[in-house]
Amino acid sequence: MTIRAAILGASGYTGAELARILSGHPDVEVTHVTSERYAGQPLSASFPHLRGSVADLVCEPLDAVKTAQKCDVAFCALPHKTSMGVVPDLLDAGLKVVDLSADFRIKEKAVYEEWYGVEHTASDLIAEAAYGLPELNRDPIRQARLVANPGCYPTAAQLALAPLAAKGLIDLGDVIVDAKSGVTGAGRSAKQATLYSEVADGFKAYSVGTHRHAPEIEQELSRLGGQAASVQFTPHLVPQLRGILATCYVRLQEKSDGEALRELYRAYYRDEPFIRIMPEGRLPNTAWVRGSNHCDIALIPDFRTGRLVVLSAIDNLIKGASGAAVQNMNLMLGLGETRGLLQGPLFP
Amino acid sequence: MTIRAAILGASGYTGAELARILSGHPDVEVTHVTSERYAGQPLSASFPHLRGSVADLVCEPLDAVKTAQKCDVAFCALPHKTSMGVVPDLLDAGLKVVDLSADFRIKEKAVYEEWYGVEHTASDLIAEAAYGLPELNRDPIRQARLVANPGCYPTAAQLALAPLAAKGLIDLGDVIVDAKSGVTGAGRSAKQATLYSEVADGFKAYSVGTHRHAPEIEQELSRLGGQAASVQFTPHLVPQLRGILATCYVRLQEKSDGEALRELYRAYYRDEPFIRIMPEGRLPNTAWVRGSNHCDIALIPDFRTGRLVVLSAIDNLIKGASGAAVQNMNLMLGLGETRGLLQGPLFP
Amino acid sequence: MTIRAAILGASGYTGAELARILSGHPDVEVTHVTSERYAGQPLSASFPHLRGSVADLVCEPLDAVKTAQKCDVAFCALPHKTSMGVVPDLLDAGLKVVDLSADFRIKEKAVYEEWYGVEHTASDLIAEAAYGLPELNRDPIRQARLVANPGCYPTAAQLALAPLAAKGLIDLGDVIVDAKSGVTGAGRSAKQATLYSEVADGFKAYSVGTHRHAPEIEQELSRLGGQAASVQFTPHLVPQLRGILATCYVRLQEKSDGEALRELYRAYYRDEPFIRIMPEGRLPNTAWVRGSNHCDIALIPDFRTGRLVVLSAIDNLIKGASGAAVQNMNLMLGLGETRGLLQGPLFP
Amino acid sequence: MTIRAAILGASGYTGAELARILSGHPDVEVTHVTSERYAGQPLSASFPHLRGSVADLVCEPLDAVKTAQKCDVAFCALPHKTSMGVVPDLLDAGLKVVDLSADFRIKEKAVYEEWYGVEHTASDLIAEAAYGLPELNRDPIRQARLVANPGCYPTAAQLALAPLAAKGLIDLGDVIVDAKSGVTGAGRSAKQATLYSEVADGFKAYSVGTHRHAPEIEQELSRLGGQAASVQFTPHLVPQLRGILATCYVRLQEKSDGEALRELYRAYYRDEPFIRIMPEGRLPNTAWVRGSNHCDIALIPDFRTGRLVVLSAIDNLIKGASGAAVQNMNLMLGLGETRGLLQGPLFP
Repeated sequence: MTIRAAILGASGYTGAELARILSGHPDVEVTHVTSERYAGQPLSASFPHLRGSVADLVCEPLDAVKTAQKCDVAFCALPHKTSMGVVPDLLDAGLKVVDLSADFRIKEKAVYEEWYGVEHTASDLIAEAAYGLPELNRDPIRQARLVANPGCYPTAAQLALAPLAAKGLIDLGDVIVDAKSGVTGAGRSAKQATLYSEVADGFKAYSVGTHRHAPEIEQELSRLGGQAASVQFTPHLVPQLRGILATCYVRLQEKSDGEALRELYRAYYRDEPFIRIMPEGRLPNTAWVRGSNHCDIALIPDFRTGRLVVLSAIDNLIKGASGAAVQNMNLMLGLGETRGLLQGPLFP
Repeated sequence: MTIRAAILGASGYTGAELARILSGHPDVEVTHVTSERYAGQPLSASFPHLRGSVADLVCEPLDAVKTAQKCDVAFCALPHKTSMGVVPDLLDAGLKVVDLSADFRIKEKAVYEEWYGVEHTASDLIAEAAYGLPELNRDPIRQARLVANPGCYPTAAQLALAPLAAKGLIDLGDVIVDAKSGVTGAGRSAKQATLYSEVADGFKAYSVGTHRHAPEIEQELSRLGGQAASVQFTPHLVPQLRGILATCYVRLQEKSDGEALRELYRAYYRDEPFIRIMPEGRLPNTAWVRGSNHCDIALIPDFRTGRLVVLSAIDNLIKGASGAAVQNMNLMLGLGETRGLLQGPLFP
Repeated sequence: MTIRAAILGASGYTGAELARILSGHPDVEVTHVTSERYAGQPLSASFPHLRGSVADLVCEPLDAVKTAQKCDVAFCALPHKTSMGVVPDLLDAGLKVVDLSADFRIKEKAVYEEWYGVEHTASDLIAEAAYGLPELNRDPIRQARLVANPGCYPTAAQLALAPLAAKGLIDLGDVIVDAKSGVTGAGRSAKQATLYSEVADGFKAYSVGTHRHAPEIEQELSRLGGQAASVQFTPHLVPQLRGILATCYVRLQEKSDGEALRELYRAYYRDEPFIRIMPEGRLPNTAWVRGSNHCDIALIPDFRTGRLVVLSAIDNLIKGASGAAVQNMNLMLGLGETRGLLQGPLFP
Repeated sequence: MTIRAAILGASGYTGAELARILSGHPDVEVTHVTSERYAGQPLSASFPHLRGSVADLVCEPLDAVKTAQKCDVAFCALPHKTSMGVVPDLLDAGLKVVDLSADFRIKEKAVYEEWYGVEHTASDLIAEAAYGLPELNRDPIRQARLVANPGCYPTAAQLALAPLAAKGLIDLGDVIVDAKSGVTGAGRSAKQATLYSEVADGFKAYSVGTHRHAPEIEQELSRLGGQAASVQFTPHLVPQLRGILATCYVRLQEKSDGEALRELYRAYYRDEPFIRIMPEGRLPNTAWVRGSNHCDIALIPDFRTGRLVVLSAIDNLIKGASGAAVQNMNLMLGLGETRGLLQGPLFP
């Protein structure tokens, strides 16, 4: 039986990636795509690269009732706030929902409202929503009607630090995540700041100390480690299309060498199909995960300074967004977790 | 039954792409990879992005006997001249061979030797080798033991011009192909000229009037059109990873409008799974075929000047090399032509 | 005596380049900058790289009277149509004007109106305006009150072909200019099409057969050659910041070899400080003129096809815009032609 | 009187930048360039962008005697170890020397030998050599015969942290410098790892915990602060040509707000022509210093975490190498410190 899927907000990059990934998913058919801007036009008018595939579907305006009639599962690739407006109706109509916005990630309503600057209008669903990082939260995702797909930076940071946090090996009050993202992370809206001419051959930090992914990282590391985490989070913009590299600085509670740490990670992530622990002497490169659902991780203890440096790399649009969303859907529907997601990285 | 495939010369970019594509091919298993430089090491030592896949195979030195023992089909991703040294042994041992070098593309030995500057040591096989552009030469490929996989530029140029040449609609003596390629086309050898610092944010022509793909384009257009073709071919280097755009200038024998020409192309390429004729007003972009086996084509007659401009875009490593090679293998082995090749373009 | 200069429309890229170049000009002081968007703010709010220089000047709204009070010369880096609205007043007030828009480039009002789609409201000035390509039109520029600074593509194309056109060596009815430009040529307005994520790692043609620079190239080649020129002009977008490479295809009336042609060009451009004829075997690269007012030119006759390929490279924002404008101002004011313009190319 | 300058090792990127900068220096003439690889050829054979300038000089093999005959000052843009072999002879012959290698930066011979893995053969000169960061060490530079030009990363890190270290405001035992560099920092040798195809559209860390610039940063911060500094230094490779951004994490001994810190920096760097303290809300971008000798600095205290984030941006080839070298020469020779260095940033 083929699952019928909707992509709500299909004309952004995560929508396009959902369309691309689901086109190759053996158990799923995309039967419904929405876009206000391209309503009445085929999705390929917005994304010519997808011509001849699911993108020949005509975009419709957002309408939960219609979606419910045509689909079993909905991916909400909508802006935050818009998402919380439509999710309740989708759930009421019996759909499973993977929400790629931030609306159901933050467990404390007040924290959400402070960082996102809007009132939460569907806060009764926050508790129910499963946080959608399968490697760290698989069972709740399996049971969920609603999954909150994680932010791209939080995915990279959590996968880098989860084994240490879960095992209590680091001081969660002293964590620095210096993260770097390709420009697709900034979305597809026309803005001067993300023009090619403004961004190419330049590198900068942004939202230092104020980025909305900080509380998300802290929430989940706190949950894993059972103690309040404080994360210094600095995002940077890299002149490249895809990829996040997180350079994490922590202090180990007790000394450990690199091989012992790698062994710990290999054990913690045993059987995880998308996590690759790099061997000694090999560091992650975002180019080596581009186009795939992988997360590559390396551990480098520095005996001069007493710190541990953990590096992780993901494709922000796949493991950091649409790939994770499909992985979550697979779990929610009882499909094989890797279905549709085994495409290898595209390098160079 | 699973086909066992060898990749000879696996540590270059086309080798890596073969490994990636074949990893996802449902009917094929890569059982043998060779590399002189990485002999004794897993292929992933050269290509960490492929870790956890076929790339965990250990590279062996080139040895046709061993290859023949382990495999049913061999992809030669070797430098020209090296290839002609090993292909005869592979064929003798009963393998099917797709040769990605230039060694069996040029039908006239003297032309080959003049342009490539080496003696052809397996010239008895030239006539037998099928030129591996499936859209233009499918039946011979199906019958062949040996397929000469086309050059990347010739693929873009021929697919752009084939319908016009085959129907006798243009003067083949007056053809200009102004082509632009991403840097992966220059290979993986360490050269100052292709360092990031030399190439980024710069654009240049190279090998003007002297590039080896010129006689290949002329040979095939002549064959298709039944008259001697003369092609002014100018390659350029674009500061991007993948992609070829060919801008072709021809003169129509008789006036025609854009829609009639598009209709001609749609008819000529009817049922071709990888050719997409762009609708009016939409021009090809190499980014829209990146990571896929597609070729996008547009036709723009210019009534001011009386010329027709034909644009085509491919991914040079896929439709221009490894994807085409797998397509050829599928045909040679009687598999579905699109097996393993349906991955959509990765944009952005 | 210091010349006082105005930059009208200073918040675009050509405005910023004017500010940068004039900051280093020993005879000129920028005393007035306008920008509607940044009115009341220092220019450095728009261009932080210029902080600590002329960019600490506060932007004012466009106002010809004010400009005339404060300045001796005005650079109009305004959109076409806006420019023709203000230039007459500037001239009436006694200023010299270099207009970087297209408004005074096209000598036939009807041609301008057809290609630009607007009525020309200052057409009495068209005849008076000197076309501002100093290498080809130096004396009229020296005498002019108003100079029409050439388009970026036309500069590259004309400098490539002028000696051949002027000497009657080519058939001007059979000229192809296949040109490639960096993204800064598309300006600074926020558009989806020029976002980094849309443009990076991709290559495309645009405005095939319909670009407004075609009639400008034809007009000037016709004037130089004394016969009607027909130019097939195809612009392409390169994923790089700066630079235009023009690949020009022509047919020589009589055979000539490369060295004779280079000698012809060296003679034609003798004493030109910004033109560099490449020696045999060396082809232009936009990276080698980046940041400078140079134009590099190479000539490659192709004896196989009978055509001549001429390549030229410029920095589109300097020799293709703001550098040429300063060169024109120097001529108009009787200053040394290279004043402020001797900065060498920035490579890599 | 014109100063005669030599560039030893002129065929690398820092050599080319010296040639470019000195071409525009009003008091200096380059009279001698050396390159083993290009000996007998004009420097423009290696760097065509410099054609028509100083680069028409013919390269000679390295020979201290010849250099001494022709020049007053020598810039050694040689590899470390090679430099220490020639510097003593240059000094003996009475030249002033700016050494761009690492050979005289590290004050403790043993530390140098440990990190660079070679014996120091001119260690008697180490004490005499002035560390060439003018903003922090101007007077010794003025008096010096030999200046050790700083590393690119150490320049960015020290300028970011010097006021805090000098005033004792931070714990120098807890400093993290997460630094990112463009690819030109990796030099011009042909290596697979820095090919365009390996580097573009990818981001990675390298030499984590083992980079040779760590002890240099620690040495100078220790000297400034009068206490042993321990610096966690992580370099990263950015897919861009030029630029270093250093993201520094420190803990203030006492709370302070952003404006107080900016005021402290403005005071500390008062009268420094090349340091720009960014106003509140504005963060450095390497694109805004490209092509200039500037260093842009921002300070962001994070009250959530109690840390201070300091960001600095330089052009690694200019303020991080050749521009600083010319600034040092100006000081050593009593010329105006900014002579030849006032060229503004080239953006975009």
